[in-house]
Order: sequence, then structure tokens, then C-alpha cells
Amino acid sequence: MAETFDQRLAALGLALPAAPKPVAAYVPVVQTGNLVFISGQLPLKDGRLEQTGRVPSQVTVEQAKVSGTQAALNLLAVLGSHLEGDWTRLKRIVRLGIFVQSDDGFHDQAIVGNSVSELMEKLFGNRGKHARATVGVNALPLDSPVEVELVAEVG
Amino acid sequence: MAETFDQRLAALGLALPAAPKPVAAYVPVVQTGNLVFISGQLPLKDGRLEQTGRVPSQVTVEQAKVSGTQAALNLLAVLGSHLEGDWTRLKRIVRLGIFVQSDDGFHDQAIVGNSVSELMEKLFGNRGKHARATVGVNALPLDSPVEVELVAEVG
Amino acid sequence: MAETFDQRLAALGLALPAAPKPVAAYVPVVQTGNLVFISGQLPLKDGRLEQTGRVPSQVTVEQAKVSGTQAALNLLAVLGSHLEGDWTRLKRIVRLGIFVQSDDGFHDQAIVGNSVSELMEKLFGNRGKHARATVGVNALPLDSPVEVELVAEVG
Repeated sequence: MAETFDQRLAALGLALPAAPKPVAAYVPVVQTGNLVFISGQLPLKDGRLEQTGRVPSQVTVEQAKVSGTQAALNLLAVLGSHLEGDWTRLKRIVRLGIFVQSDDGFHDQAIVGNSVSELMEKLFGNRGKHARATVGVNALPLDSPVEVELVAEVG
Repeated sequence: MAETFDQRLAALGLALPAAPKPVAAYVPVVQTGNLVFISGQLPLKDGRLEQTGRVPSQVTVEQAKVSGTQAALNLLAVLGSHLEGDWTRLKRIVRLGIFVQSDDGFHDQAIVGNSVSELMEKLFGNRGKHARATVGVNALPLDSPVEVELVAEVG
Repeated sequence: MAETFDQRLAALGLALPAAPKPVAAYVPVVQTGNLVFISGQLPLKDGRLEQTGRVPSQVTVEQAKVSGTQAALNLLAVLGSHLEGDWTRLKRIVRLGIFVQSDDGFHDQAIVGNSVSELMEKLFGNRGKHARATVGVNALPLDSPVEVELVAEVG
């Protein structure tokens, strides 16, 4: 892992967005001990959702994977900001909670979730391998197709 | 923050209920290290739900916010009991998990969630600012409109 | 608690399956400090689901309880493998996240969840008493009736 985080991200053709601003009554990230809890992120890009609706009737599985990647980038923007850009302080991605806005009868949530999980492993190697819970739900904020939250261990 | 917790709660016109009794096979709260995990709370008041059903067809958004406040009070009753009333031992509300029983097509879960988040900030200031994940679901226990769980750091 | 874990499990007529293999991009278990996070487990048995569909129209509550027990066994298989069979290292089951694939209008998720919670207490006594969040969802991976994730404290 001689490459830096930024080099690896660029090699994937990706870039981090600006970290979201703290909102009124809750915040993007809380650290307690060595654990960092990051709020559920939607796949907002430049302040808007490129896809809205349920998977797969309104958002295809392929589109939902793109949304999953964007939600992951937003999580990493929050985490990177919290670490002040020092990714050596990231010890482990511990847990992802992945919610997919699903049609009744859709059961390939894991495929959508893999777009998030695989990015973590590509970027962080063994440090990126995490536990996760992936479920379908009938409704998400802003009609987002996915929402992802994260727990990480930092140094 | 010269006021006490009780004074601040009273100023909001609120009071804590009695902490729920431990049930058979799970318990309201578990502490591990400095972290406290509180079981998902429904907006029970005197043992019953004042509102039941999905948001917004059966429970309006305004009613759901009232339910969110009640679930938050139940969480705080558990936490206060665990802390034996010594709120100085509360270091941080770390994470809320907020589930809103939602109609298909309802996407304002964040508004309902804010009723919980804002109470935490009003009562605890910066210590009350937390990470959260807010999602919709098609069904909740006892037909409750909301369920909220909590992780906190204590001293 | 003079009996061993294996004796207690056998007395319940149960046996642990083999722990699931690590998959590509996420893993069954991550330890951080003394906390162990186990990925959401489905009630797979010999690689397949014995029941699929929503509760109660396609999977009865009684069948869903059997599925809950199987998901719990899969969690314990992961945990036991992580502990290399030394169950004295288990200090506490901390939290369960229980998702029940529910028909609209089904609100007895707690009954299904109890199949998981009660097994933990039967096997581990006070160490098995945990916090939990139990919710309904409209869709789960592989059309599973239940998914359960776990946080535990280990020594």
C-alpha cells in the first residue's frame, strides 16, 4: 500500500466531495474513544440526488450501485475531514449499515451494498474490510435510493 | 449550562416517565466500557401508544413529532435511571437510530427525526449533538409510528 | 453455570453450524478494542433458506421464530469461531439489531425477536441479556424472513 489514499481514489476515477456542514440538531460525526460514528449519508452530489425512488422499479440496480458509491464518498468526506486528511489515523472500517429503498419483492440489496463495501476494500485494503448489515426499506429521506452509515476505529 | 437537567426539562414543559422495567429476555440498557446501548424505545406513555399507524396517512407529521419526543423521553428515562440521576456522568449522546413507520412515498423522515435530535440538543447542548441514521420502514412493533434507539458515552 | 456452552446448546437440541466463510468485500466479524461487531446474518442452513417471504402471509410467526433461532445460531457460529471456541472470553451480548420482513400491518416483530433474545439468555444467562432494536422492513436479502446483527463485548 505504497500509494496514498488520494492516489488510490484518483486511480478509481473518483474524488471526494466537500464534507457536509454540521446541521442544526445533529452532526455528521461523533468520536467516542477510538470509535467514530458517522451519520447516515445519502448519495447527495452538489447538494442534490441524481437518482430518486425505489429499486428496481424507479432506480435500476446499476444506478443504485452508483448511488451507493456516492453515499460512500460522502461518508469518506466526513471521515477525512474528521481526520484532517491524515488517513494513516484510520485503523479500521468497523461496520456499515446499508439501507436500500426497495420495491416489495426486491431481494438483491447485497448487490447494491457491494458497491459500498468494495470501494472500502479497494481504498483501504484489509483496513477496509468491515462487518455490515444490509436491509431493504420502503421509504428513505428525500426519496433517496440508498442511505449508508459507518463506524470506524481511528488512532 | 448553570441549569440542571431537571430545570431544563421542566422549562420545555416535559417530564421523564418512570424507566421501563427490564423484560424477560432483553434489557433496556447495557453498558460496555464507557458506551451505553439503549434498546429501541416506542413512544409509550403510561403503558400505551397515543398514536398508532403509518406516517402521514394515519399519523400526521406533527403527531409523529410528538411521538418522537415521547420516545426520546423514554430513552432518557432509561439513561437517567442507569446514571442514578447523575446527569454530569453523561459525556455525549453518540448515535440515534430513528425508524419512522412510513407510507410508501413518504420521505420526510428527517422532520420526524428532528423532534428527537432537537430535544437532545436543547437538554444537553454540545453534549447532545449526535450522529444519527433516520430511515422509513413499513411496519413497527405495536403499530408504533416511531422507534428510536441510542448509544451514549458516560463517565 | 457449571455446564459448558456446548452442553447447554445440546440440551436445547441445537448445534452450531460451521462459521460462514469471509466474503469478498466484507467480513463476518470485526473486533475493535473489546467490542465485536458481527455482520447481519440470515437464517441460512446448509447454504439455503428453509423459509422465504414476508411474515405472516408467506412465513408464519412460528416459522419466523425458527428462522430467528437459525440466524442466532449463525451469529454464534461466527462469534465462537472468532473466540476460537473459548466462550469464557465472551463478557456480554451487548446489542442485537433484528429486522423482520413484514407484511404491511404486521406488528408482532417482538415475538419473532424473542426467539433470538431468549436463546441468548438461555445460553449465557446474565451475560446474554442485551439491548436490542427490532423493526419490520418490506424487503430483505434473498427474501429472508429475518436478519439479525450483533455487538458483543469480549475479553
